[in-house]
This record gives sequence, structure tokens and C-alpha cells, in this order.
Amino acid sequence: MRFCRFSYRGKISWGVLENEKVQPLAGPPYYGIVKEGEPLLLADVELIAPVEPSKIICLGLNYADHAREMGAALPEEPVLFMKPPSSIIGPREAIVVPNVSQRVDYEAELAVVMGKKAYKISSEKALEFVFGYTCANDVTARDLQQKDGQWTRSKSFDTFCPMGPWIETEINPHGLNIKLRQNGVIRQQSNTENLIFKVPEIISYISYIMTLLPGDVILTGTPAGVGPVKSGDFLEVEIEGIGTLENTVK
Amino acid sequence: MRFCRFSYRGKISWGVLENEKVQPLAGPPYYGIVKEGEPLLLADVELIAPVEPSKIICLGLNYADHAREMGAALPEEPVLFMKPPSSIIGPREAIVVPNVSQRVDYEAELAVVMGKKAYKISSEKALEFVFGYTCANDVTARDLQQKDGQWTRSKSFDTFCPMGPWIETEINPHGLNIKLRQNGVIRQQSNTENLIFKVPEIISYISYIMTLLPGDVILTGTPAGVGPVKSGDFLEVEIEGIGTLENTVK
Repeated sequence: MRFCRFSYRGKISWGVLENEKVQPLAGPPYYGIVKEGEPLLLADVELIAPVEPSKIICLGLNYADHAREMGAALPEEPVLFMKPPSSIIGPREAIVVPNVSQRVDYEAELAVVMGKKAYKISSEKALEFVFGYTCANDVTARDLQQKDGQWTRSKSFDTFCPMGPWIETEINPHGLNIKLRQNGVIRQQSNTENLIFKVPEIISYISYIMTLLPGDVILTGTPAGVGPVKSGDFLEVEIEGIGTLENTVK
Repeated sequence: MRFCRFSYRGKISWGVLENEKVQPLAGPPYYGIVKEGEPLLLADVELIAPVEPSKIICLGLNYADHAREMGAALPEEPVLFMKPPSSIIGPREAIVVPNVSQRVDYEAELAVVMGKKAYKISSEKALEFVFGYTCANDVTARDLQQKDGQWTRSKSFDTFCPMGPWIETEINPHGLNIKLRQNGVIRQQSNTENLIFKVPEIISYISYIMTLLPGDVILTGTPAGVGPVKSGDFLEVEIEGIGTLENTVK
């Protein structure tokens, strides 16, 4: 199933997407799916980011070809960082390049959305705690990342975490083609089978550090091909079986 | 005024503290103070962490003596990192040392609690956006911090962000004595006048990166004297004019 959040006549709701229609829900789908009201035409609503996480945990250097292009060694353990919820934007919204950076890069990523509270769970059981998957762009001020040492500032500007267009719940996260197009030109192209740490391992690893809550988001890392955006760009993150996240750049 | 969160007969509420009594509130105090029900005796309630932030932004190396003891250069700009909300515990709760670390340190810090949405605000206006101040312990797995490069894992274990005992709203954040006692012995002792980046500068700096929301927390950094905890320890973070945050170690 595909779950979305949308704005319609000034009200924000969760919904289920089917055949170009959106069935509104009474609340977040993690705790049970309760329909509320009549289906709307997808064309009549505005999709917004399909997540409201208490935290966003991200992996760095989780595709070997990207680690190589960054001149970094392959990690022995997952490299973690966080993005604040205030950095999230939805489909079609604009990424805003801050004045303080001279180089802001796109980074296409598979995002995991948790469905259940998870603490100290094994890799074998990890996928049972997942709600679904969506597309993300881990926008990064590359110059500030290199300058600061800690990655927090460079990853945390408002608008630096586009997510969407919806959450797909019936999909295997492995073996999915992932692409980023900039103004129609393919810049990143890989497959989630190339993840160094796979989705179940990632979830288990994080769950031994911190309690993951329903709705929490994990960004799984980006493949090679990262590069700078510029004002006026049209960016698309496409993941096979999920959909395409489209954003502009201001 | 002093604001707390507390548990009483299984219900969690916000409250105002006065003369050993707690006046329950209808909701978080950021949006207006609405009393609800009769005052309770402080002795009859259990204080919990007085914060429910959407994010916790922290500064590293913000006291010169601590930067020296870590062998780090003084930062030219604030060094930012984040702790997840899942790491928060309240007064008297136990810090749990994870198996994966051989060295977990205390770090006494002044915490700022935001009262209003803040985006791109000047240092001059920054304090108008503050709700109040509380004590925090930025618990850190020092060995993992040094191993990982990125500080996220080492700062993010469940129980690694004790906060409380309450929020003091009528205090100037500068010139406050700050101490950490371990089993009654003073280990850290400084004054917030020694902060390299002062509270208004810190808030302004962060607000040019990301939108701060009511309830969001900023940890302002720790002075010299950090050191390891061990099972059975009793830790106290005392800040002049605010109070004392007490925690045990498991």
C-alpha cells in the first residue's frame, strides 16, 4: 500500500493512495488504519512530506563507490549522523541554498520509515519493525561539511531533507534501482543491493544505541555521483517500486 | 518562575513550582499558562524531564579549559552536534552504561529551552525567544567519540541526556556557577561567563541554520574536568539560580 500526507482545503491529513485517489485517514497509519471521509482525487490535493519523525538517523559512506569518490576508507561500522525534523520538506517544495555555503550537493537515498518501537532488535527481526520506504534527498553543504569536521551544520539547514512522494509498504528494500536526475540528466545511478550495510543490519545497529519510535526515519546513504545544485535546478530522486521525489532549487 | 513536568497517579502534566507545591497546568507553558486542578505537594509527585523537544542542538568545545583538556584548538565558530530526544531522562533516573563502551563520561551543561519559533534572529534579540534554563548532563561514550569521528553514536545512547530538575524562567544565563559532583566530590566547577560563544550568539548562530521551535533545547557545552562514570555513581549537576539535577549510574 502507499501512504501519503496531504493538504486539502487547509487541512493536513494522512491518506491511502489507490488508482489516483486518496482515501483520508483519521490519524497516522502506524497504530491502525482508520478511514475518515470520502476519497479525494490525487490531482485535487497537495502532497506533503509523508513523515513526522521524532528523529532522522542517517548513514554516511554506505555505498563503496561514493566512499571512493569522497576519498574515504570503507567504514567498518555504520557512520551515523542526524538531520533535524525542521530540515524536512515535501514533494515539489524548493531546496533553499544558504548564503553561507558555496557548494550544496544533492544525495539520493532510500529512506526507511519505522512502524513499531524498536530497541535492541536483531537483524533477523528488524524488517518486522519497518512501516515502509520512501525517497529522500540528503542535501549537504559540502564545503561546510569539509570545514566543520562534525557534519551536523552542513546537513541541517531548513529544506535540506526533501522526502516523499509517499511511503510504499509492500516492497523489499534490496535490489531497488535508485537514480538522481538533475534537469533531466542522470547524475546518480545505483541499486540498493550495493549498500555496504543492508537495511536489517542498519536498523539493528541503531536499535542497540537508541530506541526507534513509530514514524522515525533512517536515511541509508547515497551512491556515487554527488554534485552541486544551482538555483533553478529541477531534481528527481527515483527509486524503483516506490516513486519519484521532485524538488526545485532556489 | 519554575516550570516542571511531573507524574502523579499515572498521569503526566506540566506544572508551576512554588513553595514546595506544584500547580498543574493544562498543557505546555510556551503558549500560555493555563492552570488546571488543585496544587499538589512537590513531595507527592515524581518530577520527570522538563522538556519535550523536537530537537536537541549541542555545542562542543565551548569552554576554553575543556577544549585544552581534550587537546583541541579553540573553535572559530560553534561546533554543533545533536542528541536524539530518545536520549532524555529526568531527575533521579539512571544513566545506563552500554556494553559497547569502556569509558562513559559526565559533562555538566547549561541547557537553554526555547519559548518561541526562531529563524534568522540576531544576537541582540535572541534572549526574547528563550523560555528558560535547566541543567543537563551531556553523557558521552568517550572511546566511541574518539573512534567514530562523527560524535552522533557516542552522544545518543538512551539515557545519555539527563535534564532537569525544572526550567527556571527568570534568570540571566551569564555569570552562573556550574558544578558537577560525583559521589559528593566536585569534578567540574566553572561559570557560564567562561562560555566561548555566549547564549545569545549561540541561539542566533543556530537560528541561521534551522528553525528553532518552542520546547527545543540547546546544550551550551561543558567546562573542564570531564571524567568517567561507573556503576553505582551518584551524579549532581548544580547550576546557580536554577537547581541541582541528580542521577544515578547503572
